[in-house]
Amino acid sequence: MARELEREPIRHGGDLDEARRLFPQAPEPWIDLSTGINPIPYPWPALDASAFTRLPARTDLASLEAAAAQAYGARPAHVAAAPGTQALIDLIPRLRPPGRVAVVGPTYAEHAASWARAGHSVATVPDLTAEADIGVVVNPNNPDGRVMPARDLAAAAARLAERGGWLVVDEAFADLEPVESLCGTPPPGCLVLRSFGKTYGLAGLRLGFAVAGEPLIGTVRRAIGPWAVSGPAIAVGRRALADAAWRREAAEARGRDAARLDGLLKSAGGRIVGGTTLFRTADFADGPSLFTHLGRAGIFVRRFEAAPARLRLGLPPDEAAWTRLAASLRMR
Amino acid sequence: MARELEREPIRHGGDLDEARRLFPQAPEPWIDLSTGINPIPYPWPALDASAFTRLPARTDLASLEAAAAQAYGARPAHVAAAPGTQALIDLIPRLRPPGRVAVVGPTYAEHAASWARAGHSVATVPDLTAEADIGVVVNPNNPDGRVMPARDLAAAAARLAERGGWLVVDEAFADLEPVESLCGTPPPGCLVLRSFGKTYGLAGLRLGFAVAGEPLIGTVRRAIGPWAVSGPAIAVGRRALADAAWRREAAEARGRDAARLDGLLKSAGGRIVGGTTLFRTADFADGPSLFTHLGRAGIFVRRFEAAPARLRLGLPPDEAAWTRLAASLRMR
Repeated sequence: MARELEREPIRHGGDLDEARRLFPQAPEPWIDLSTGINPIPYPWPALDASAFTRLPARTDLASLEAAAAQAYGARPAHVAAAPGTQALIDLIPRLRPPGRVAVVGPTYAEHAASWARAGHSVATVPDLTAEADIGVVVNPNNPDGRVMPARDLAAAAARLAERGGWLVVDEAFADLEPVESLCGTPPPGCLVLRSFGKTYGLAGLRLGFAVAGEPLIGTVRRAIGPWAVSGPAIAVGRRALADAAWRREAAEARGRDAARLDGLLKSAGGRIVGGTTLFRTADFADGPSLFTHLGRAGIFVRRFEAAPARLRLGLPPDEAAWTRLAASLRMR
Repeated sequence: MARELEREPIRHGGDLDEARRLFPQAPEPWIDLSTGINPIPYPWPALDASAFTRLPARTDLASLEAAAAQAYGARPAHVAAAPGTQALIDLIPRLRPPGRVAVVGPTYAEHAASWARAGHSVATVPDLTAEADIGVVVNPNNPDGRVMPARDLAAAAARLAERGGWLVVDEAFADLEPVESLCGTPPPGCLVLRSFGKTYGLAGLRLGFAVAGEPLIGTVRRAIGPWAVSGPAIAVGRRALADAAWRREAAEARGRDAARLDGLLKSAGGRIVGGTTLFRTADFADGPSLFTHLGRAGIFVRRFEAAPARLRLGLPPDEAAWTRLAASLRMR
């Protein structure tokens, strides 16, 4: 088992196939705490047939982007919808010639991987003072929840823009946090990313947004193309993004869950590193064996190749899952 | 009205917003015959909640690609799913440095537009004998239905591959036709595109496929990224693609519709240029005024900037639409 665990590349949560491969004897159903996806989804409406049958019209997309703009405090003209934030992470590095990229990390691994795949030279750096053409910051950061002040980000964006560079600020986990967003007035050369699936618990829909000023948002919009976002994502997305009351209640309820999870992790000997409303990260003296212990109990959490003591846990979806998690943590 | 019609750039069908702008007095509901989308959609199943809430797993995507491989006569390892063929058309030109692109045309305008957007130099050519790094063929062609034999395409792919070039063969309209596909044994350097939404009448789902040998398919797959296709598209797509009986019946029934449409267009003075099972293209002595006449009657068809005599019509969805179309054609 140990050898197999080591051989697996660790890049993502959310893959229960991997959990089943690693722990074939674990009891089903699995409790998947390996992501930061809200376990209480937005109550999505029944879909009209036209969401499936019709090619989405420009006005459909525009109304989705207008709802996103309102939710993010942005101008509608600054918002471009995409089939998931990951699609933007894959796309953006292909929109400029290879250069030097500084990713503030450790962080979500796909940023560095995607820039490297597109031929850029990528360094992981502790902050945005490094010499580079492109800076990448996840804010709040995944997995440690570190938040950078908006004015520091704006200053970094200005430095990069002076030489034609870009700053990518991934605000995937900003929706339910009291974080100062750059969406309201994105500095020149700054591209902000927002995720729909995580906040609304609807990761299967594949929906995310880029927010930037002109001309950058036009470049991104043209590269995404006219029909990348599905009819179901448009129909559900525009309803959910317009629902500020649901978002407020979700922030409160999931905030209580996050505090409850911190309590459990501390009781189990964890040192809380940080996180966001939708996931908590802690270091454990016995991190690798706790990962295995939980896995054998059918609870899949996120571990990190470079920090074996560290585990990240999403929020349990219901009382049964809370009980199983608490019992597993107690029984080791 | 005439001036407004001229000012509109003509690139796509399927945009009823445009129809309403051009013909604000037309009776609703519109009959949209401006696309080649099957008007009788595959009867999509009710979706499990997990299609919305869960991040699609690698095995979900693999089972979709296996179903597509079977439908297209390809090897599963040669198939990569994407959020619509258009997403692939936007992506592929960014996967190689700018070069010379020969698009066999006139054809679907997004191919040339997308290669140009990515910095390539693009020529529209009558056949694949031109000197180029990249060849692009739509087969069967849109809008005239011209079919190129597989062996000519394989020979062209071999010529291009010798110098590191690619041949893109867009088989968007091949599913319901007796066309020899390149999906079974894609030649080196050849990228075949297949569309899901047109055949199955589910364009809102955003689903399409690239089919190619290694290493090309790996390059495309990595660029698409891990979660570009939505849960609803995976759930509906794998069911529909596995349903060979539905596809056979659709080809027969829509084939009868296509013949019926040819009859109507000929009675109205049209000279049939060609088309596929899902659309018919005809030249009319009074093409521009027929477009306007139909538009005022609430029937939106496709016209072409470079060929004013030419109109393309998709299949009417039901008897009421057939009756309205026949009456409009008679009454002019």
